[in-house]
Amino acid sequence: MQYSERILNTPSSFIRNILKVTDAEDVISFAGGLPNPISFPIDALKQSVNHAIEVSGSKLFQYSTTQGYLPLREYIAEKYNKRQPGLDYKPEDVFITTGSQQALELMSKVLINKDDGIIIEEPGYLGAIQAFTLSQPTFYGVTLEEEGLNLEELEKALQQPNVKFIYTVPNFQNPTGLTYSKERREQIYEIVKKHDVILFEDDPYGELRFTGESLPYIGAGKLENSVVLGSFSKTVTPGMRLGYILTKNHELLGHIETAKQASDLHTNIFAQYVIHDYLANNEYDAHVQKIIALYKEQSDAMLAAMDKYFPAHVTYTKPEGGMFIWATMGNGASALEKFHEAMEQKVAFVPGDPFYTDKKGVSTMRLNYTNATPEIIEEGIKRLGSIL
Amino acid sequence: MQYSERILNTPSSFIRNILKVTDAEDVISFAGGLPNPISFPIDALKQSVNHAIEVSGSKLFQYSTTQGYLPLREYIAEKYNKRQPGLDYKPEDVFITTGSQQALELMSKVLINKDDGIIIEEPGYLGAIQAFTLSQPTFYGVTLEEEGLNLEELEKALQQPNVKFIYTVPNFQNPTGLTYSKERREQIYEIVKKHDVILFEDDPYGELRFTGESLPYIGAGKLENSVVLGSFSKTVTPGMRLGYILTKNHELLGHIETAKQASDLHTNIFAQYVIHDYLANNEYDAHVQKIIALYKEQSDAMLAAMDKYFPAHVTYTKPEGGMFIWATMGNGASALEKFHEAMEQKVAFVPGDPFYTDKKGVSTMRLNYTNATPEIIEEGIKRLGSIL
Repeated sequence: MQYSERILNTPSSFIRNILKVTDAEDVISFAGGLPNPISFPIDALKQSVNHAIEVSGSKLFQYSTTQGYLPLREYIAEKYNKRQPGLDYKPEDVFITTGSQQALELMSKVLINKDDGIIIEEPGYLGAIQAFTLSQPTFYGVTLEEEGLNLEELEKALQQPNVKFIYTVPNFQNPTGLTYSKERREQIYEIVKKHDVILFEDDPYGELRFTGESLPYIGAGKLENSVVLGSFSKTVTPGMRLGYILTKNHELLGHIETAKQASDLHTNIFAQYVIHDYLANNEYDAHVQKIIALYKEQSDAMLAAMDKYFPAHVTYTKPEGGMFIWATMGNGASALEKFHEAMEQKVAFVPGDPFYTDKKGVSTMRLNYTNATPEIIEEGIKRLGSIL
Repeated sequence: MQYSERILNTPSSFIRNILKVTDAEDVISFAGGLPNPISFPIDALKQSVNHAIEVSGSKLFQYSTTQGYLPLREYIAEKYNKRQPGLDYKPEDVFITTGSQQALELMSKVLINKDDGIIIEEPGYLGAIQAFTLSQPTFYGVTLEEEGLNLEELEKALQQPNVKFIYTVPNFQNPTGLTYSKERREQIYEIVKKHDVILFEDDPYGELRFTGESLPYIGAGKLENSVVLGSFSKTVTPGMRLGYILTKNHELLGHIETAKQASDLHTNIFAQYVIHDYLANNEYDAHVQKIIALYKEQSDAMLAAMDKYFPAHVTYTKPEGGMFIWATMGNGASALEKFHEAMEQKVAFVPGDPFYTDKKGVSTMRLNYTNATPEIIEEGIKRLGSIL
């Protein structure tokens, strides 16, 4: 059997593969990217299941519309409009997807012909690289700096042929934990608005800010071809696979609808009713504050331990929210080699390689802090420090 | 903005589009394809939600494995092995998908390069045509006769270059309601086994047999490149979007896993726990019998009304199960034109056109009987008879 060119070129997830090793009971793992179970409001969701069934009965179980459950779309539009005045989203600008991973895949499906260009942060989100790769694009990596995308590289990449979109994670980026500054956002907007290109702002972590002030989106609310992606995976539950696309480009959404019909008809409608019922009948903001307090404590613990145990040549980001810290070894060592040494000491992280579309043997690593206590974090960083 | 070639070539669902008209309150609609809500065991599923959360807690809400929930995969393997001795499926031969629609899309994604061949029943399942079209194949239609695929046409189609798979719905096919005979199944097997090609048997309705005896699969259990697709949509709930792939070709499943990771990471794990709990703790077979009894009554009512009200030139299939009857006008009239006349009389069906990959203006139509009472069915068929 001869498989398709596109699947033979798509990497299986390096992270999912190493998780098979790093998930062993006796390993301190900073390799995962799972939300802490505290972020699952289990009792309230259970109540919402029962309540939603009581109110809407068989509608939770029947086939449903491809765009998603209207009251949920209304809720989402309103939530964003409150968060950032001027966004002015309508329910018809909201499209529900089977997790935001599906949104990434649908977007490339409807936009990318083989060899078309995609501009992506370097390092960039692995799930996006995987999803986009299925459409066989040419990736143009633009260095992600402390403040955001490097502007010169961005301008140069936009000169390349058939560039369809720019993919960014402006808040607490995965893998680096970096957040674009207000000034850099404005500079990027000024550059992008001159081009016929879609600006993606993938924002799964945006609500999980534990320090500093919330910043406006780069293009949303101003740019015709702005697309924002959101998710309930980091604040309610990832298991139910609910994400969404926000855009005022309805031609794009029309194509997305056709692609989604062909891909899975519609997103689990039971889950849409339940999450909507949960959001409508609970103190969601208070719930998010609990998650933030926990993640701040964990992030602080990891940064303090790094300060104490990491050698001077290792630098690292100081996230204002989200789930990750990114460390860089100044001595040029291979993070992949260090990964194997670390596993011998029963501590795990993700070496940087899979986050680049065209680099290998890098000296960078991603560390997740949301799934361990401060004590375990300190012990793990101590072990790691001795290796680095 | 320039969209991808593949999306510009993919039809949006004709059926989903006409449903906007045919769903009006005062229309008797045979156009849908929805299971009757009696097929949703709502109270039992509600109990299973509460029970599964009690037993497994946060596991229902966290990220999960791409292949699917192991106990559910074990249950499915065992169920098929009981149904047809010799299938001998293992849990690792079962892969959970976001409805079987996703299985169709994943299969074409991992197998089809542009212009590769797909052999499909003519008429064929619209959802499959849509999903496959995203990969820009060349379709080779093979006439679906009373007994199954036309053998001469099948042999000829298999001579075409780069044919990757044959797509069949052997039991109570959508749109025709036809079931492949035992003899034709064996003849197809003898032909297919000589070729390096995958034989798909998509079987969402197989359990809903109300007359005649259950028949063995064409290739499953015998053919190396056999793929069976199943679903819980027609017997438990379509709203939760749970389908699955059964195959012993693990190289294929490896590629499917990569494609699914990139497409939506994994299927809603909450739904997988709940459906498994339901299946493990309820009388599933008795539940299916209730659905069968209802659909038989409805099918009988529609056939009796057709016998009474349809003019002699109209012939129609007599399904042994499933949800559809297929009618053919012997006078060569356009079913699409008749559709508009019928809508004036407030009765709806699906004209045959979208079920063909290369025909227009056909004289065939699909009628669904699972969502109306025998009285309504008689009234609708009476109105339709006066038009035909």
